Amino acid sequence: MDKIEEREMEVVQVLHMNGGVGESSYANNSLVQRKVISMTKPIFEEAMTNLYISNNFPGKLIIADLGCSSGPNTLLVVSEVVKTVNNICRKLGNQSVPEYQLLLNDLPGNDFNTIFRSLPSFQENLKEQMGPGVAGSCFFTGVPGSFYGRLFPSCSLHFVHSSYSLQWLSQVPEGIEGNKGNIYMASTSPATVLQAYYQQFQKDFSLFLKCRSEELVSGGRMVLTFLGRKSDDPSSKECCYIWELLAMALNDMVTEGVIEEEKMNSFNIPQYTPSPFEIKSQVLEEGSFAVDRLEVSQVNWNAYSSNNGLSGANGLINKDGGYNVAKSMRAVAEPLLVSQFGEAIIDEVFDRYKEIIADRMSKEKTEFINVTVSLKKIG
Amino acid sequence: MDKIEEREMEVVQVLHMNGGVGESSYANNSLVQRKVISMTKPIFEEAMTNLYISNNFPGKLIIADLGCSSGPNTLLVVSEVVKTVNNICRKLGNQSVPEYQLLLNDLPGNDFNTIFRSLPSFQENLKEQMGPGVAGSCFFTGVPGSFYGRLFPSCSLHFVHSSYSLQWLSQVPEGIEGNKGNIYMASTSPATVLQAYYQQFQKDFSLFLKCRSEELVSGGRMVLTFLGRKSDDPSSKECCYIWELLAMALNDMVTEGVIEEEKMNSFNIPQYTPSPFEIKSQVLEEGSFAVDRLEVSQVNWNAYSSNNGLSGANGLINKDGGYNVAKSMRAVAEPLLVSQFGEAIIDEVFDRYKEIIADRMSKEKTEFINVTVSLKKIG
Repeated sequence: MDKIEEREMEVVQVLHMNGGVGESSYANNSLVQRKVISMTKPIFEEAMTNLYISNNFPGKLIIADLGCSSGPNTLLVVSEVVKTVNNICRKLGNQSVPEYQLLLNDLPGNDFNTIFRSLPSFQENLKEQMGPGVAGSCFFTGVPGSFYGRLFPSCSLHFVHSSYSLQWLSQVPEGIEGNKGNIYMASTSPATVLQAYYQQFQKDFSLFLKCRSEELVSGGRMVLTFLGRKSDDPSSKECCYIWELLAMALNDMVTEGVIEEEKMNSFNIPQYTPSPFEIKSQVLEEGSFAVDRLEVSQVNWNAYSSNNGLSGANGLINKDGGYNVAKSMRAVAEPLLVSQFGEAIIDEVFDRYKEIIADRMSKEKTEFINVTVSLKKIG
Repeated sequence: MDKIEEREMEVVQVLHMNGGVGESSYANNSLVQRKVISMTKPIFEEAMTNLYISNNFPGKLIIADLGCSSGPNTLLVVSEVVKTVNNICRKLGNQSVPEYQLLLNDLPGNDFNTIFRSLPSFQENLKEQMGPGVAGSCFFTGVPGSFYGRLFPSCSLHFVHSSYSLQWLSQVPEGIEGNKGNIYMASTSPATVLQAYYQQFQKDFSLFLKCRSEELVSGGRMVLTFLGRKSDDPSSKECCYIWELLAMALNDMVTEGVIEEEKMNSFNIPQYTPSPFEIKSQVLEEGSFAVDRLEVSQVNWNAYSSNNGLSGANGLINKDGGYNVAKSMRAVAEPLLVSQFGEAIIDEVFDRYKEIIADRMSKEKTEFINVTVSLKKIG
C-alpha cells in the first residue's frame, strides 16, 4: 500500500530537535502532544496491529520512541502503545498481553531525570486504567544518544516511533556560505544552498534508515512523522515561511546595528522539511524498508485558532496567536540563537518575531505541513 | 564450587543505597570505586568467562548494573565488563567481539542526567583504548526503579552486577519500636528487633532473587557484593559499630536537648549486613540460583590508612581518617537524617561523629566486611 492522504488538523507545531546541533531538550506542550498523537493514531494503530499479528503475537514487544524530549506528555506515546496492543489482544480474543520494553531516546543533554521521576506516578495511573498486570509488564529505559548513529543492539527492536524529530539534521549543511540574509532555505537562497540542504537530508535520513534496519527484527516497523512540505520546491513558503519571519526580525536588528551582519550571514537552521516524494525516494534508495503508508496533514500554526485559514477575526486572538507560535518557536530556536548571537538579544528577537507572526496570521493562511510515513523492514 | 575466602583490602566503604528509603544517588569516590572493582575482579572475570563460554559466545551480551549511582566512576564497571570479555575473546582466539547492551539501574531519584552527559567522553576514551569497533558495539541505557521489583522483560539479561547496594532494605523493618537509643541493630537491641531486621532481609533478598531469575536467560549469572559480616551474630561489632558511633553522636544531642528523644527512638537505618551463611541460605531457600562462589573480604574504614589495624600513628592521620570516614557516611546517611530530624542539626551531627570516629580509629582496628557471591541461574 502506498497511499498519500491529506488530513486537516489543528495542531500547533512544536519542533523537537534531536541529532542536531546543541541542546536537544525542551518542554513539550500538553495540547500539542495530545493532538499530534491523535493525528498519527490511525497509522500507528495499523502498523502496530500488522506488526503484532505478523510476528505471531510475541510475548515481548520492544518499542523505541526516538526524540522523546522531556515534558508532561513524553509518556503519552507509551500509553498509546499499551492501549493499542491491549485493544488488539481483546479484539482477537488473545488473553495474554505482552511485556513491553519501552526505550525512550533523546540526545544526552535531554532531561531524563524529569522523565524518570515522573514514572512512578505514570505507572500508578496506568495501573488504575489498565490493571496491575499491564502496568507491571511495562519496563522503561532511557537511551541517550543521536539517532543518526546506532543506539541499540542488532535485531533488538520490534517498533520505532518518532514524531517531529527527523526534520532536524545532524549538522548545518556545509557549503551554504551563499545563504546571506537568510537563516534557512528561502525563495532568495541560491540553488547551491538548496542542494546542500537536500544532500544533508539524504545523507542523514539514509544513515537513520540503515541504523534502524540493523536494530529492528525481521518484519519490524516504524512510524515517523516529519515536519515537511507538500510542494516539490524545498524553498516553498509552506515550510520556510516560519523561518523567513524570524530572519526578518534578525535582519531588522542587523539594520539597526544590534546584530553583526557577519554573524547573521553565517547563521543557518540545521533542519530539512522533506516532501513525501523525497522521503519515499530516500527509503527506496536506501533499500532496507518498504513504504506501507505515506500521509500528509496540515496543521495551523496556532492550536487555538479556528481551521478557516485566517486564524482569528479579532486582534486579541491574533496577538495571542502570535504569542503562542513565537513561544513554541522560541523553545526550539533559542539554544541555536544563543549559541550564535549570545543571551542578550534573545528577548528582543522574540518580541519582534511575535509581532511579525501576529501580523501575518491576521492576513494569511498559516499552516505547517506534516508528513507521516509507515515503514516495514524488508526481509 | 562453594568456597569462602578472605582477603584483606584497603578500601574505604561507600554505601550505595538503592531500593531503600528516600533518595538514592550520591557521588561515588574515585579511589573507592577503583578499589572495589579491583577487589571483585577475579570473581567477576570467572563468572563472565563461564557465562560467555557456556552460552556459546553469544553475539550480544546484555548486562545490568544494579544500584549504579552517579559519579565519575559509575562507568568503571562497564569498562571492566568490556575489557574482560575482550580478553576472553583474545585468549580463545575468538575474533568477533560481541555487542554489549549495558543497563544502568538505580532509583528514579538518581542523577541519570550526569551519567548520560558523561557518556560521549566515556565512549571517546573507550574508542582510544579498545578501538572503534568495540566502542561502537556498546549500547547504554538507564533503567530507573527499585531492584526489589521487576526492572526488565523476562529472559532478557545475561549478567547482573551489583556492588554495595543490596545491604539496603526496601524499608525500615516493622515491629522494631523496642530499639530505643539505637539506630541500627546493636548489642543492646532486643531479640525481636534483630529478628525483624533479618526477616526484612530474607523477604527483600528473596524477592530480588525471584525477580532476577525471571529476567535472566537460562544459565545467566550474577555477581553481588554486600556490605556484610563474618560473625553469626547480626549485632556483631564488625557490622554495627559504624552506626553505633553515629547513635552515640545523636544520643549526646538528645541528652543536650538538641534532638527530641521521641524522634531518636523512632529512627532506624534500613540496612541489613548479612553473613555469608545467611546469603547462601536465602539463595538455597529461594531456589532459582546455585552458589558458584562466596567470598569475604575486609576493608579498612579509611582507604588512606595502612593495613595494620590501627589506622594511623599520629593525630593528623587519625583526624583525617575520621573526616574521610564521616564524609563517606554522610553521603549515605544525610538524606535519612534530614528526613527524620531536619536540616538544621546535620552539620553538628557530623562534626561530633567525625570526632568519635577519629578517636576510635586511633585505638581500635576498624574494618568493614564485604561479602561477594557469584550465582548461576538454575535451569
